[in-house]
Amino acid sequence: MKNIEEYIRSIPDFPKEGIIFRDVTTVLQDADGFHLAIDEMMKCLEGVEFDVVAAAESRGFVFAAPIAYSLCKPLVLVRKAGKLPFDTISREYSLEYGSSTLEMHSDSIKKGQRVVIVDDLVATGGTLECAAKLVEDLGGTVEKILCLIELKGLKGRELLKDYDLTSVIKYEGK
Amino acid sequence: MKNIEEYIRSIPDFPKEGIIFRDVTTVLQDADGFHLAIDEMMKCLEGVEFDVVAAAESRGFVFAAPIAYSLCKPLVLVRKAGKLPFDTISREYSLEYGSSTLEMHSDSIKKGQRVVIVDDLVATGGTLECAAKLVEDLGGTVEKILCLIELKGLKGRELLKDYDLTSVIKYEGK
Repeated sequence: MKNIEEYIRSIPDFPKEGIIFRDVTTVLQDADGFHLAIDEMMKCLEGVEFDVVAAAESRGFVFAAPIAYSLCKPLVLVRKAGKLPFDTISREYSLEYGSSTLEMHSDSIKKGQRVVIVDDLVATGGTLECAAKLVEDLGGTVEKILCLIELKGLKGRELLKDYDLTSVIKYEGK
Repeated sequence: MKNIEEYIRSIPDFPKEGIIFRDVTTVLQDADGFHLAIDEMMKCLEGVEFDVVAAAESRGFVFAAPIAYSLCKPLVLVRKAGKLPFDTISREYSLEYGSSTLEMHSDSIKKGQRVVIVDDLVATGGTLECAAKLVEDLGGTVEKILCLIELKGLKGRELLKDYDLTSVIKYEGK
């Protein structure tokens, strides 16, 4: 049986020189790889008490949705600005160049709900920190941030030090 | 037990006057609603022989991923231009104003594979027709296009007449 690492495609110099892009589409497009990834992520939730799965747009949706469905939890979307049709709250976060905005529906988390945030990959942690703060703005508590992949060289774990970050696969570089 | 319709939030005059936006986030953020939606969609696949689930960005991911995971099928992403990191093929499709481009990884479908395309909603059908043609460009056959919601007034079914379109919930209007 293969490890998840073997399903991940590493693309050198994408999107720019010196970056090795970790492509999860090759995990998804293999039935065994996809099953293994979701199962390994769900193992990280054993013993964690929580009420809601929140997912960061849009690769996060691919991992969060099967987890929420399998564990019979609600799924809440964290989306880029302008995508959610009802009343929203928003937060800006920094990118390498400029900034971006994430939004959540105001009624998507109820006060006191315990939330697990799911994404495919943690790099600098900026997106996930923004998502975590939005959850807290709505009165939720972040029980765990769960990612398939962690790029340790980008130090997302430092930015997210106030949260319980769990990743299934760790790469040393960027 | 509630019907799926009761979980859908209808937002009048969004994104513009005269349009009733059918918001699926209220389906997702209710554990029972989400489970019911996925289960009803999977019922539509009983007896359908297929190899791959393909999903249109990005709400399609939310429905396609649990279906692919539960049925032990590969999941292939159809994304907007510039989002996929490896070799891609692309197609343009028309929007009300202007056009947009969808891409798939060149190696995501193998010749002869039978594909079910999943999305949240069929409106004019432009996105889904584009996705279906991309699947065919890669040598796949579209066994079914499966959506949770169909807006009959926008006549997506006419545009997609060459395909087997199945929707769980039908609204008469736009």
